[in-house]
Amino acid sequence: MTIEAQARAARRAAPLIASASSTTKSGALMRMADALQARAAAILDANAADVEEARAAVERGDLGAAFVDRLLLDEGRLEAMAGAVREVAAADDPIGREDESWLRPNGLRVSRRRIPLGVVGIIYEARPNVTSDAAALCLKAGNAVVLKGGSDALRSNRAVVEALRAGLAAGGIDPAVLQFIDSADRESILALLSQEESVDLIIPRGGEGLVRFVSAHSRIPVIKHYKGVCHVYLDATADADKAVSIVINGKVQRPSVCNAIETVLVHRSRAEDLLPAVAEGLMGHGVRLHLDERALAALKGRGLFDPALCVPATEEDFFAEYLSLDVAVAVVDDLDAAIGHIQTYGSDHTEAIVTESVGQAEAFLSRVNSSVVLVNASTRFADGGQLGLGAEIGISTTKLHAFGPMGLRELTTTKFVIRGDGQIRG
Amino acid sequence: MTIEAQARAARRAAPLIASASSTTKSGALMRMADALQARAAAILDANAADVEEARAAVERGDLGAAFVDRLLLDEGRLEAMAGAVREVAAADDPIGREDESWLRPNGLRVSRRRIPLGVVGIIYEARPNVTSDAAALCLKAGNAVVLKGGSDALRSNRAVVEALRAGLAAGGIDPAVLQFIDSADRESILALLSQEESVDLIIPRGGEGLVRFVSAHSRIPVIKHYKGVCHVYLDATADADKAVSIVINGKVQRPSVCNAIETVLVHRSRAEDLLPAVAEGLMGHGVRLHLDERALAALKGRGLFDPALCVPATEEDFFAEYLSLDVAVAVVDDLDAAIGHIQTYGSDHTEAIVTESVGQAEAFLSRVNSSVVLVNASTRFADGGQLGLGAEIGISTTKLHAFGPMGLRELTTTKFVIRGDGQIRG
Repeated sequence: MTIEAQARAARRAAPLIASASSTTKSGALMRMADALQARAAAILDANAADVEEARAAVERGDLGAAFVDRLLLDEGRLEAMAGAVREVAAADDPIGREDESWLRPNGLRVSRRRIPLGVVGIIYEARPNVTSDAAALCLKAGNAVVLKGGSDALRSNRAVVEALRAGLAAGGIDPAVLQFIDSADRESILALLSQEESVDLIIPRGGEGLVRFVSAHSRIPVIKHYKGVCHVYLDATADADKAVSIVINGKVQRPSVCNAIETVLVHRSRAEDLLPAVAEGLMGHGVRLHLDERALAALKGRGLFDPALCVPATEEDFFAEYLSLDVAVAVVDDLDAAIGHIQTYGSDHTEAIVTESVGQAEAFLSRVNSSVVLVNASTRFADGGQLGLGAEIGISTTKLHAFGPMGLRELTTTKFVIRGDGQIRG
Repeated sequence: MTIEAQARAARRAAPLIASASSTTKSGALMRMADALQARAAAILDANAADVEEARAAVERGDLGAAFVDRLLLDEGRLEAMAGAVREVAAADDPIGREDESWLRPNGLRVSRRRIPLGVVGIIYEARPNVTSDAAALCLKAGNAVVLKGGSDALRSNRAVVEALRAGLAAGGIDPAVLQFIDSADRESILALLSQEESVDLIIPRGGEGLVRFVSAHSRIPVIKHYKGVCHVYLDATADADKAVSIVINGKVQRPSVCNAIETVLVHRSRAEDLLPAVAEGLMGHGVRLHLDERALAALKGRGLFDPALCVPATEEDFFAEYLSLDVAVAVVDDLDAAIGHIQTYGSDHTEAIVTESVGQAEAFLSRVNSSVVLVNASTRFADGGQLGLGAEIGISTTKLHAFGPMGLRELTTTKFVIRGDGQIRG
């Protein structure tokens, strides 16, 4: 089938999943999870072939070593994939909810009812678990879905999709609601991005290169996530224990993710006490500090300057999404300066303040319009699961439709439902 | 200033309007309204020059006669423009609302707080009132705005914007939040559409040609409204009085607007009684009926066939947005057939059912996923003001971000606000 035909097939099948009951959808998702485990042998065989090819590419130097780890499946990871699908099956169904309803003066009863978006396209890279995660989330929210995974995982994804489609059929839902683009070339991405008559939304999941390629070429609305340059501002009144643990948690617990801290801003009144304590804690975890002049001077003044872990910051450091055990550190004059820094160098993703001052906390929460703003808590909570949204389809750093972590609800929209008794407009 | 410089100026000024209090914003909007009336002479002079040029173009046959009416301003229309701005000034401010807040098991308090989108670009055609309407709505919702109006209204729009900016300054808001692209060429639209670093959303307001041009060329998210092919389905149990008045109101009250009825679908059991009554009512208002075979036969059978107002429908008729005193009519077998017709030929805008059956009503409301679905009420209620949303920035027929009539709230997004007491992620 051509990609156009696949997109049309998804569009035609969309009303089936849109009108399926919660019971039917959950049941089908449970069968999808079962099928992943029942077909484990076939999936692991396919994955082994992908992994073999990737290992050869790593040896040739065409791919980084971390690539194979992202691609690799085993019994445990497959079980985790099935478990994630079962969690989505058990989640509350957003479809049909009417959170608002009001009566007009002329007696019309108006409400907003939640409905699926229609057809969602997901374009992603080498992790095969995205195949089952994204399919489960889109289908649970009543959408048909078109998946385009990374070429290096083609065999794995194909086997996963075969299992998922078998589960759908066993659950009484036409597998046409789940389309998989079985192609390794980039042209197929372009073909998908031009199906604006059939596809309502594209979500790219992957590195900045993929995201920029997709948003530059799409004729379909795209929800993007470029990068997370997350800040923590340690205010004059910051509690030292909270500050140290929040900074270390944000930087060290999982440095490779988008909600990790990349820059620490310290109020100038705390350059002599709190900054050294934080720096010592970070260096104790092997973190390299990229320090502005005042931060460097403060550490030198306290005899904490370690040339292996302390380097002067350039302006590029403040734009950097390190995703590694590196952090930029700057001393700022006050809240205004901290917010100015965030607006200049930030990515609208996630920012935190550590403060005991309710006034500074509220000012920070009001004036910083990143997708997640926190007081006295780790930036690592900027995550759909941690916020209680359930499984996450992604994080949006653009403000249209969704901003921040996206759960099932962000895969839906609302229509107006109006009940009258013969009203006409005068 | 280049368009890039204007977009950047709007981006830089956006935090000023985003953090302005409701009182400040309302006050500035009131001053904008006052300025429109205080500068009436200058605005009407500028408009007279535009109108003179447009009249010459009409005489040459380059423009339709209705064009001049849309362009023309007089004291009364200017007063109405100022009145509309005052209404927006008085409307509830969506910014800062937290409609949802919940506590996580670890003690984190999470809420979603409404914030502005940032910078909104509005691209529109010849009605100068859009200049003040769109500016007022965007600014009230805390956004900076970049306006690009039709070239034929350039002098009028320039004079209106001068008044609005004077009002902003008098109200204590930097006029940089309101940028006007003072250019008549289409290249300037392309330039605006490529400012994705500075502009968060583009809303085109105008004919299908403009909307398609904008969405084909924009690198910025676009909220679109192509057309409204609205349907009324008269069910087997429809009350005849309601049916006749709802159809006539939907078709005749203002045929040129997008929420007017374009197609009437009649249950086959009512082809002999209700269809003739509806047809007679429509023809009495001079409406031309484009009838499918069964509808044609029914009218002939009742001696109601008037060759001047009854023509056989082609398939194109069912796709048509007439915007005139024309309507397509088809007889359908049942609700399934009616919904199938709407899914095939509709535009996802607005559809109504007339029925006394609660089962048919609920099935229609559930299964038809157009932006507005009504039971026993005129499609003409698909309008922000009529639904109680306040003034309308437009109607979206795409499902991302907004679907259906868009008020102030649709010019905003939400961020997550999280309050902790030192929580870190385990």
